[in-house]
Amino acid sequence: MNARPDTLPGARAAACFHQFKQHPPLVHCLTNDVVQSLTANVLLALGASPAMVVEPSEAAEFSGIASALLVNIGTLTEASAAAMLAAIKAANQAGTPWALDPVAVGGLRYRTEFARQLLTLKPAAIRGNASEIMALSGQRGGGRGVDSTDDSLAALPAAQALASTSGAVVAVTGEIDYVTDGVRSWAVTGGDALMTRVVGTGCSLSAVAAAFCSLPGARLDNVATACRVMALCGQRACAIAAGPGSFTPAFLDALYQLCAEDLQ
Amino acid sequence: MNARPDTLPGARAAACFHQFKQHPPLVHCLTNDVVQSLTANVLLALGASPAMVVEPSEAAEFSGIASALLVNIGTLTEASAAAMLAAIKAANQAGTPWALDPVAVGGLRYRTEFARQLLTLKPAAIRGNASEIMALSGQRGGGRGVDSTDDSLAALPAAQALASTSGAVVAVTGEIDYVTDGVRSWAVTGGDALMTRVVGTGCSLSAVAAAFCSLPGARLDNVATACRVMALCGQRACAIAAGPGSFTPAFLDALYQLCAEDLQ
Amino acid sequence: MNARPDTLPGARAAACFHQFKQHPPLVHCLTNDVVQSLTANVLLALGASPAMVVEPSEAAEFSGIASALLVNIGTLTEASAAAMLAAIKAANQAGTPWALDPVAVGGLRYRTEFARQLLTLKPAAIRGNASEIMALSGQRGGGRGVDSTDDSLAALPAAQALASTSGAVVAVTGEIDYVTDGVRSWAVTGGDALMTRVVGTGCSLSAVAAAFCSLPGARLDNVATACRVMALCGQRACAIAAGPGSFTPAFLDALYQLCAEDLQ
Repeated sequence: MNARPDTLPGARAAACFHQFKQHPPLVHCLTNDVVQSLTANVLLALGASPAMVVEPSEAAEFSGIASALLVNIGTLTEASAAAMLAAIKAANQAGTPWALDPVAVGGLRYRTEFARQLLTLKPAAIRGNASEIMALSGQRGGGRGVDSTDDSLAALPAAQALASTSGAVVAVTGEIDYVTDGVRSWAVTGGDALMTRVVGTGCSLSAVAAAFCSLPGARLDNVATACRVMALCGQRACAIAAGPGSFTPAFLDALYQLCAEDLQ
Repeated sequence: MNARPDTLPGARAAACFHQFKQHPPLVHCLTNDVVQSLTANVLLALGASPAMVVEPSEAAEFSGIASALLVNIGTLTEASAAAMLAAIKAANQAGTPWALDPVAVGGLRYRTEFARQLLTLKPAAIRGNASEIMALSGQRGGGRGVDSTDDSLAALPAAQALASTSGAVVAVTGEIDYVTDGVRSWAVTGGDALMTRVVGTGCSLSAVAAAFCSLPGARLDNVATACRVMALCGQRACAIAAGPGSFTPAFLDALYQLCAEDLQ
Repeated sequence: MNARPDTLPGARAAACFHQFKQHPPLVHCLTNDVVQSLTANVLLALGASPAMVVEPSEAAEFSGIASALLVNIGTLTEASAAAMLAAIKAANQAGTPWALDPVAVGGLRYRTEFARQLLTLKPAAIRGNASEIMALSGQRGGGRGVDSTDDSLAALPAAQALASTSGAVVAVTGEIDYVTDGVRSWAVTGGDALMTRVVGTGCSLSAVAAAFCSLPGARLDNVATACRVMALCGQRACAIAAGPGSFTPAFLDALYQLCAEDLQ
């Protein structure tokens, strides 16, 4: 048990990214106050279009138009929770896929209850670190804030259980990322520990995962490709960065320059 | 009709920018959640002082002190709308010029009605892309979110009509920017398509346009100079950037280094 | 009177920073909308963990877990004021130190009254520019927005008085920083005027000062070390930056690379 899943084949990632570039998604982002700018810039660098529309009636209107919706609860408030619920309801009516980033779930009551409520609203994907995925699946969560104190492979069974009960593709990210639909799973390698020293790399991955949910084909492969795109570009940026400051410009440049062939 | 206006003469832009550097404005920015940091850094790089004061009573207090006010409706909520109205009212009483950035107007009801209401409150300048300016002037708007799907020259008649009815100088920006007071118009060249892959370049131009509205002299020339400053520095940054990530540091450096003579 | 205090000895700063690296703090940041991302990235670059938890009940919950709390009133609203009061109350009950950044206090009524109220709630540290510290101590404040129009040495008596009445260590920052507990004071050199052209350098220093308040030992030395860390890394970044754009990546890299020995 807990055998390490196979690595996502490069040819599948390349095919999936090719589709993304052919049909750049419009991504409605309801995300936290800290990562708004990086999230938008990551999507723009990849050729997608981000839009942050936060007033509840507009959020509902916009989710019908968008290709995908991201819901990130990092700086959840009563006001943002209302916008999220309105947007998700409209997204579900319009058939727009939505992704959940359950930031810091487990340790804090308000968001933990809210995230559990969201689980019943058919997310297409969930992306979190090991602590968050374990907490959301009902297993213990040992996170202190947004740091993961658990290993991603140890959280794979929780991710699989969460995928089975919610119907979402679940990505548990860490040194290696694991993406599962409850039955099949992929491992995604790449990335670098330096990325944990830059705020928003995980949150913007969730936005990219939401974007990839809008593509046709197997959602499992699509979400795993989102992880692979970010891990590969993160690795490339770390190879030339002197620290977390020079990482960010290099990362956005790498995302901008990425071709489908690079993923083979 | 729709003849391309003349390009803003370099000597006028240089004279106008010289004044800006002599009297660096204090700009009250009520702007969206995504671009707060870039907007502040753009103003600071140019030598101006940004201040984001958002509580309604303070926003009103501060608009009387500031040199200019920016109102950007990108992440409009009921709370921010109240602060904007209070600030505009105080700005108008104090004679502080204010500029409107009607982000994504046309496609979304709440902001479209709010933007139309703001039009009656005597903005000194309005800066938007072609879709936004056409929608605001009452013509059809085809924008999906914040992207412009229309050409800026095609929107010039709408910009001229909007300028005539609102009393504002209107800048419709795109590959070439057009700035009009309803009677006279300037074309502004420069910039680069890469700038559309960086969030907040348009929004921060609106903040710079607000800042330039505080200068003496012809407002048409002042707003056109704001566009020219950003287009020239954007072009310089793109010449050395490898992508949208390295663009931003290079852009802020270029704004910081800009001299009036560079605009000749 | 107003004799310049001695400079913080390098050996003390080095010892203090060594402790910081041994026990990287978890910092609860209730800060303004403009500097969220830079604040988080500064703390991450130093090895600390930032968390922005803003809903009042969660903010209270989290302040009990965190190593330190930052309260920055730059974009104060009724909603954020409620979260701040809840977090401070919980922090005080749990013995979590909290630091106050009284942005633009003096010129604006709502925040000035709120900051005066916060003074009665036992802040561990207060960090501001000369205008802010003078205004907060009850002396005249001539700030226009967030710019300091007073010299930091001229504000040292106000800082000392404020430290004595509030019980906080007070840092008044400028070309030279002065840190005082009301009785003893340190001068901290370094930094560069270019840092005033980048939004959030002062605000993120306040977050670092909060983080250093969680360390054992003399709080005066700890807060002065926070100032020294930022000033030294700022100076190093300015030495290689071409402007405020290239400053930020270089600054974060310098914070990431900093060793205790560098402070000797």
